[in-house]
Amino acid sequence: MTQPPVRFGLIGTGRIGQVHAATIAAMPEATLSWVADPFIEGADGVVARFGGTATASPEELIASGEVDAVLIASPTPTHVDLIEASIKAGLPVLCEKPIDLDIARVDALRPLVASSGVPVALGFNRRFDPAFAEAQARVAAGEVGALEQLVIISRDPAAPPADYVKVSGGIFRDMTIHDFDMARFFIDDIVSVSATGTQSFDAGAREHGDFDTAVTTLTSASGAIVTIINSRHSSAGYDQRIEAFGANGMLQVSNEPSTLVSFSGASVVEAKRPYPEFFLERYADAYALELREFVKLVRGEASTSPTFEDGRAALVLADAAQRSATEGVTVKVQL
Amino acid sequence: MTQPPVRFGLIGTGRIGQVHAATIAAMPEATLSWVADPFIEGADGVVARFGGTATASPEELIASGEVDAVLIASPTPTHVDLIEASIKAGLPVLCEKPIDLDIARVDALRPLVASSGVPVALGFNRRFDPAFAEAQARVAAGEVGALEQLVIISRDPAAPPADYVKVSGGIFRDMTIHDFDMARFFIDDIVSVSATGTQSFDAGAREHGDFDTAVTTLTSASGAIVTIINSRHSSAGYDQRIEAFGANGMLQVSNEPSTLVSFSGASVVEAKRPYPEFFLERYADAYALELREFVKLVRGEASTSPTFEDGRAALVLADAAQRSATEGVTVKVQL
Amino acid sequence: MTQPPVRFGLIGTGRIGQVHAATIAAMPEATLSWVADPFIEGADGVVARFGGTATASPEELIASGEVDAVLIASPTPTHVDLIEASIKAGLPVLCEKPIDLDIARVDALRPLVASSGVPVALGFNRRFDPAFAEAQARVAAGEVGALEQLVIISRDPAAPPADYVKVSGGIFRDMTIHDFDMARFFIDDIVSVSATGTQSFDAGAREHGDFDTAVTTLTSASGAIVTIINSRHSSAGYDQRIEAFGANGMLQVSNEPSTLVSFSGASVVEAKRPYPEFFLERYADAYALELREFVKLVRGEASTSPTFEDGRAALVLADAAQRSATEGVTVKVQL
Amino acid sequence: MTQPPVRFGLIGTGRIGQVHAATIAAMPEATLSWVADPFIEGADGVVARFGGTATASPEELIASGEVDAVLIASPTPTHVDLIEASIKAGLPVLCEKPIDLDIARVDALRPLVASSGVPVALGFNRRFDPAFAEAQARVAAGEVGALEQLVIISRDPAAPPADYVKVSGGIFRDMTIHDFDMARFFIDDIVSVSATGTQSFDAGAREHGDFDTAVTTLTSASGAIVTIINSRHSSAGYDQRIEAFGANGMLQVSNEPSTLVSFSGASVVEAKRPYPEFFLERYADAYALELREFVKLVRGEASTSPTFEDGRAALVLADAAQRSATEGVTVKVQL
Repeated sequence: MTQPPVRFGLIGTGRIGQVHAATIAAMPEATLSWVADPFIEGADGVVARFGGTATASPEELIASGEVDAVLIASPTPTHVDLIEASIKAGLPVLCEKPIDLDIARVDALRPLVASSGVPVALGFNRRFDPAFAEAQARVAAGEVGALEQLVIISRDPAAPPADYVKVSGGIFRDMTIHDFDMARFFIDDIVSVSATGTQSFDAGAREHGDFDTAVTTLTSASGAIVTIINSRHSSAGYDQRIEAFGANGMLQVSNEPSTLVSFSGASVVEAKRPYPEFFLERYADAYALELREFVKLVRGEASTSPTFEDGRAALVLADAAQRSATEGVTVKVQL
Repeated sequence: MTQPPVRFGLIGTGRIGQVHAATIAAMPEATLSWVADPFIEGADGVVARFGGTATASPEELIASGEVDAVLIASPTPTHVDLIEASIKAGLPVLCEKPIDLDIARVDALRPLVASSGVPVALGFNRRFDPAFAEAQARVAAGEVGALEQLVIISRDPAAPPADYVKVSGGIFRDMTIHDFDMARFFIDDIVSVSATGTQSFDAGAREHGDFDTAVTTLTSASGAIVTIINSRHSSAGYDQRIEAFGANGMLQVSNEPSTLVSFSGASVVEAKRPYPEFFLERYADAYALELREFVKLVRGEASTSPTFEDGRAALVLADAAQRSATEGVTVKVQL
Repeated sequence: MTQPPVRFGLIGTGRIGQVHAATIAAMPEATLSWVADPFIEGADGVVARFGGTATASPEELIASGEVDAVLIASPTPTHVDLIEASIKAGLPVLCEKPIDLDIARVDALRPLVASSGVPVALGFNRRFDPAFAEAQARVAAGEVGALEQLVIISRDPAAPPADYVKVSGGIFRDMTIHDFDMARFFIDDIVSVSATGTQSFDAGAREHGDFDTAVTTLTSASGAIVTIINSRHSSAGYDQRIEAFGANGMLQVSNEPSTLVSFSGASVVEAKRPYPEFFLERYADAYALELREFVKLVRGEASTSPTFEDGRAALVLADAAQRSATEGVTVKVQL
Repeated sequence: MTQPPVRFGLIGTGRIGQVHAATIAAMPEATLSWVADPFIEGADGVVARFGGTATASPEELIASGEVDAVLIASPTPTHVDLIEASIKAGLPVLCEKPIDLDIARVDALRPLVASSGVPVALGFNRRFDPAFAEAQARVAAGEVGALEQLVIISRDPAAPPADYVKVSGGIFRDMTIHDFDMARFFIDDIVSVSATGTQSFDAGAREHGDFDTAVTTLTSASGAIVTIINSRHSSAGYDQRIEAFGANGMLQVSNEPSTLVSFSGASVVEAKRPYPEFFLERYADAYALELREFVKLVRGEASTSPTFEDGRAALVLADAAQRSATEGVTVKVQL
């Protein structure tokens, strides 16, 4: 017998909230039931396009009795409280990363998450990207032998506004946090962090004491080294690559080509459109696959992944990187 | 002011009819109004999923007064009559190719199409593929200079069943017809056809006097040469490539990669998933873009393309290729 | 025990003769003993750089008693007589292609070659190209299954002078002849030829009734189809590619990259140097490997390949292509 | 008027000494005049193949009056003394890297090199690789805008014997030293070094307290970050790549393909031969170009590059990396 669709309560209707709403609307196994945003026009707009009941109050959504799961896509400072409220209502949660910029708040919530039995999944969407997932699965299956080096190149198309940089928590907590999770997707026994950051081009980074360019090195207990190469800009577009190098070979994930057309000419010039614009384009599939997996979790057909602990670990690594880059020392971590 | 959605009448609910139905359902500017199929269960199934009214009678659909345009996706022998009926009802038509396997029937319909003023568009979906469209636009913009050679490689993943081969009209009318239209998309003054076909591997082709492997050479009045390389099977998957070679350079359209992951190892072995499965996967975007363009045509915002004449020209070329391959002579054509 | 070096007599000191002279000079297993050219300054120049005795008389070279093998790199009309003289002197011959432009002269020499027991090898250097040789060996080893289609793309960088076109024997005998031999390297039972040629851009071709653009289709007794795509010019440089398509897969030989550097930028422009300049650059390795193999033949350690018969077969195909392109008919051949 | 060939004195006839001897022998503008090796059989063997006078005594070579330049390819501990002796004899020197493993000895020689006026060039052959040289020239010409990140991937095919590891000076002084020089080829104002090393797979590294896997991060005064990724082994072969990322784009140098043939098949398997074997194959052109440039230097037609100072700077960086990796701190350097 077919199961009834999972009724979603969506909190937050910004850019990523709207992506999730559209995905839910297109999934036969899910339905958008309630949408909450203190900015009520946002909630109304999403409901008009994708259905459900709008409210300015996340609490009303959680208490409605008409949602089977909560999707938290509101601003980062609200995450901890909303996760807590959802757990207390017994509702499985999918929360956008990061959990919080302050590890103390994350640690305060940790016992409840661990003891509640209510699934809390973190929105590290890149784990669901078909190419990265394929590479990780092939590494896990032993295709490259013992994994010795992982190189993650992750560059955004353009630096965010200075106002955003100010409240972002810094490049490591805001941007590299994705790459820390990706590192842990492949290698789970990270023990040390060494990071280098510079202010190369972005006035906002300079103004607010942040870095715009960074390289982070992680080591694992088994001797593997992860290198994460970040830039806040990339003139060719969103640059997202991975190399997993092991004793028996190397798996490489390249950027998506933006066209199948290429030119060869006497004038030694090749016109080529740039890489995919940004994450909404590059990870469109990943967002859909993430929700599909979360629906399975809500239905008890899958285990939680990535977990709250994954979210916490990425933040611990980001904090360590920040300290390493500032103080010029390698920082030991225990995850 | 926003225009009301174009109300579609869909005739035929086989594989391609269902693709069109899903596309229409997902388009804000279109709606599925009526669905006709003598096999009424097919029409009912489509209506259940995508809305509209089901009927076993295409005539009832055309006469309903509730459709703004007719999409003909029924078997080839019905096309001519349905186009005629739609024109007489003043309804714009998008008809799957080929118009018919018999040029005499096509020619009999030709004057009505020409004089009616009702738009009749042909479903040569490949013209809407973003890569082929980009290549054609760049050639038309003069990027390669005078176009001297066009090479079209077009191989299906696997030969059709022998029963289908029997009624297909032969490889040139059934399969190469797409490539003839693609040739004309780039070069419109074709004057001669020379074709070679063999029976290399397919028992069905041998049984019914068809070819499974073919190479066709077209020349244009301006001296350009088109080479079309066909096979009814391709172990790596659907092989769809184009090279446009001109005085100043060459534009190449490659196959879509099926994964972004590649492996390098000591064992000199690289695992790679094959090409896209077949046309529904490879041309998914093209089908959607084709309908979007047709909606514009219905609204008077675009001109007809590809036209009935394009459909006729492809069939004339297919007939010429069949004769050339059989008789061993180059055949002159006047399109 | 080490064998003494093979003493070469080189006849002809044009561009290709000089390449061979340099190759011989660099080979430990060969030495340049005599050099003949009626244009004695040419012979003197080669001897000054690479050693040996210069003469204006090929006959003196052949009669010198100081050569173990003759390398004929003189103009085409001299080939038949020089092969004959070398055979009569019992000297193994490596002769540049074509044997002659006139099949009657080739056929007249044929019985002597067949009966003499003196090895006569033809200079189809492309068979020795590492990439083409690898592809052919892998096809012969069954890697693609039954070979069904062979596509040879062969474009020169720029059209030859009109004076050369006049005496060249036409594009099929002068240029495609290499591709005919390459076709036979992969498929030896060619039974029919269909060719199309146009005058697209070259004034010399137009003046002397030749084609500058041509496509030739060959079929084999087993149903395989070979497509040869030629142009007398290519703005990106010398274009030399092969695709061998079979029941189980496809082997592709790409052009040599001219640089390992590539650029990605916002300005959607990629600078890339063109392909290798021309055959001396592209086939540098092949020329050396060809001579190494010929030395083995002279020493009785290898059998003759390509043979005089291979040279004749390529000319028969060229004649057939010329007729096909002119008369618009498919021509049967018996090789 | 043509200049007489430069007479080389070659000291050291190991693997790299023999490569240089063969290169000199093939250069019209150079000749091998004297060859010195205390292992006299080595010197005799080289002289037998490439000419010159053999001696067991480098001093005799330097004093012979028959050499215009000295090429030092002897073991590292002999370099300082031989450079000094050559300078005192007024003979230009090309010395294999490193100058010495001990920075104190290098610093002791430094004033003499600076004051003597005798050119001392260092054998950082990779600067002469056509692809790396092209990338550097394009960066220098501003093609990527301000250079912000340089990523150097450098992996040897297989770890050296444990005995070699013992005396090698460690991975940073022995292997990364090439990459330090490459970093400085692109960016000359390096100010800090942070390195991470692990023992992942090599018993020799473990036995002698060395690393087999290392990642080094350098920063420049201008805020650029260099990342050097090293491994002592690579199952696919010698892995030598560079990415130069700047404000306006990125230049990438890929590995050399080892074949032009590729396979696509149903069995989703692609056979491909590995990368070039090792440095003699990969940098064959670079060794020849290095000597050609050195000959120009000897003739006063070029300035010294890379210099003794370049050799010293690389060693300073290696020492800093060693300390950083051992102590877990970022090390400031002044070059």
